[in-house]
Amino acid sequence: MKFELTILGCGAAIPTSVRNCAAQVLNVLGRYFLIDCGEATQHQLRKFRIPYSKINHIFISHLHGDHFFGLIGLLSSLSMQNRKGEIHVYADKRLQDILEYQLKVLNTHLTFSLIFHSLSCQPELLYEDHALTVESFPLLHRHDAPVCGFLFREKERFRAINKEMTDAWNVPVSFLQYLKKGEDFVTDEGQLVANSRLTMDAPPPRSYAYMTDTLYREKFAAFVENVDLLYHEATYGKEYENLAQETCHSTAEQAALLAKKAGVKSLILGHFSTRYPDPSCLLPEAVAIFPNTSICTDGDIFSVSLTKSNDKK
Amino acid sequence: MKFELTILGCGAAIPTSVRNCAAQVLNVLGRYFLIDCGEATQHQLRKFRIPYSKINHIFISHLHGDHFFGLIGLLSSLSMQNRKGEIHVYADKRLQDILEYQLKVLNTHLTFSLIFHSLSCQPELLYEDHALTVESFPLLHRHDAPVCGFLFREKERFRAINKEMTDAWNVPVSFLQYLKKGEDFVTDEGQLVANSRLTMDAPPPRSYAYMTDTLYREKFAAFVENVDLLYHEATYGKEYENLAQETCHSTAEQAALLAKKAGVKSLILGHFSTRYPDPSCLLPEAVAIFPNTSICTDGDIFSVSLTKSNDKK
Repeated sequence: MKFELTILGCGAAIPTSVRNCAAQVLNVLGRYFLIDCGEATQHQLRKFRIPYSKINHIFISHLHGDHFFGLIGLLSSLSMQNRKGEIHVYADKRLQDILEYQLKVLNTHLTFSLIFHSLSCQPELLYEDHALTVESFPLLHRHDAPVCGFLFREKERFRAINKEMTDAWNVPVSFLQYLKKGEDFVTDEGQLVANSRLTMDAPPPRSYAYMTDTLYREKFAAFVENVDLLYHEATYGKEYENLAQETCHSTAEQAALLAKKAGVKSLILGHFSTRYPDPSCLLPEAVAIFPNTSICTDGDIFSVSLTKSNDKK
Repeated sequence: MKFELTILGCGAAIPTSVRNCAAQVLNVLGRYFLIDCGEATQHQLRKFRIPYSKINHIFISHLHGDHFFGLIGLLSSLSMQNRKGEIHVYADKRLQDILEYQLKVLNTHLTFSLIFHSLSCQPELLYEDHALTVESFPLLHRHDAPVCGFLFREKERFRAINKEMTDAWNVPVSFLQYLKKGEDFVTDEGQLVANSRLTMDAPPPRSYAYMTDTLYREKFAAFVENVDLLYHEATYGKEYENLAQETCHSTAEQAALLAKKAGVKSLILGHFSTRYPDPSCLLPEAVAIFPNTSICTDGDIFSVSLTKSNDKK
């Protein structure tokens, strides 16, 4: 029942000897979602032992090279490894043009179906299955590079059966599916047994949001309200707030302000400028506003564990 | 007076945890030439502390991704670092199309002039200055990816002045330039002093050849006759000779045959298939034919030292 984020690259713009360009993998219940794909992402996937042949969905926040230059190499390697099935890429339409142009020029025929989904950078549902959804929402970067945030959210789970109680009340197996959905049980004698006596709350859905390459705008908090885990860029410290403004990035303090405003549970800072060999100097200004903040390093893993809901039915 | 090759990547097709895709840097007397540029070449340049802002000339052997996917990232990083002047790329014309298309779509304006030289994959002079030349020559790979070998060769040096002797013969300073070029000296009294008494042989020119992604053809030896250092692909061992033939690659044995035929001084094997976690198993079959053979690893440095010529004038 994993909900686990692995940081593949937390650097900005230019890779350094310790930080790669933007990329991360979210493993939700065995589904591997790749988020951004800077150069050498395939190297990082190998280094951190991610089973990358299982990646079916790739989300690219925007068209700056440090967020997608690794995609053509990753797709080529997967094809050389005879990957089958479908790989879905969600990105600015122009990335499709770039990829297809290269594949055509190189006369490359991928072994899998590459399915392209053009991002509108408006709030929209990108992906849905029985267990989770992925949505995009707009952020604000340069005019020529519209940027999306992404929100991964588990769906509500069915209620968990309290077997001791269903045995005691002789609930037939065929009725368990209704109990899971919250229905009450009526015995053969006509006695109503409240659902809450026969089931337990399921763990609440978990959620993760990715916000990178954006100016700080308080209104963006509404998109990520109450998420368990938020990754927010902190390219600069507050001493460079003007530079952040000028380059359409955020400071660590601004990331913390957004986390606080949105009421998230925990915040990860990333996308650090090369001027910070050790970005832990950015932590104090964020923690002062939002205590549950972490600085990340390539290879770090952040898990959201299943917890019991506090709100009993 | 360096003539030094640094291996940045000696892997084939797909990068592994120990070998990157094709790339290497040749430093000739402070000129840095980049040869091939697989994904993450900029990472390797940093890792092995190559002053990559000094690279002015980039040679791409052919248009398979493992030989050029790192170029767009390297050029972007150089531009973000405000690189000025010119960078010359020698490659298949289609690479120009790919690069220019991406730069246009991304609305990127490089801070330097990117000057493209289309390779004919025929023997031709690509680069020349007062100290060396770079030539291309044709190899044989897939029909849709014409491939070039590259030959770097120092020019003949001027003869070295034997100061003790020129002082003894009162040779005027203004005549030293003629001595360097091999002229004899005539004293005021009309006595001829042979050049060989006043000068010493200069070290002979050094040379390096790069041959990758090619079928073995004996005739290719003519292009690299007597070079000091030859890098030749050895994607497979001779047990996979059929596979090498099928995929248009060479075996280690074939690389050694070519080195022997060409009379080179030393041979480096590279471009190893991922099936060889330790490619040193390829060495015996090559050494049996050409003893002065090395297996390389990313980061290895091969130097050609200046030696005195054996042929005295």
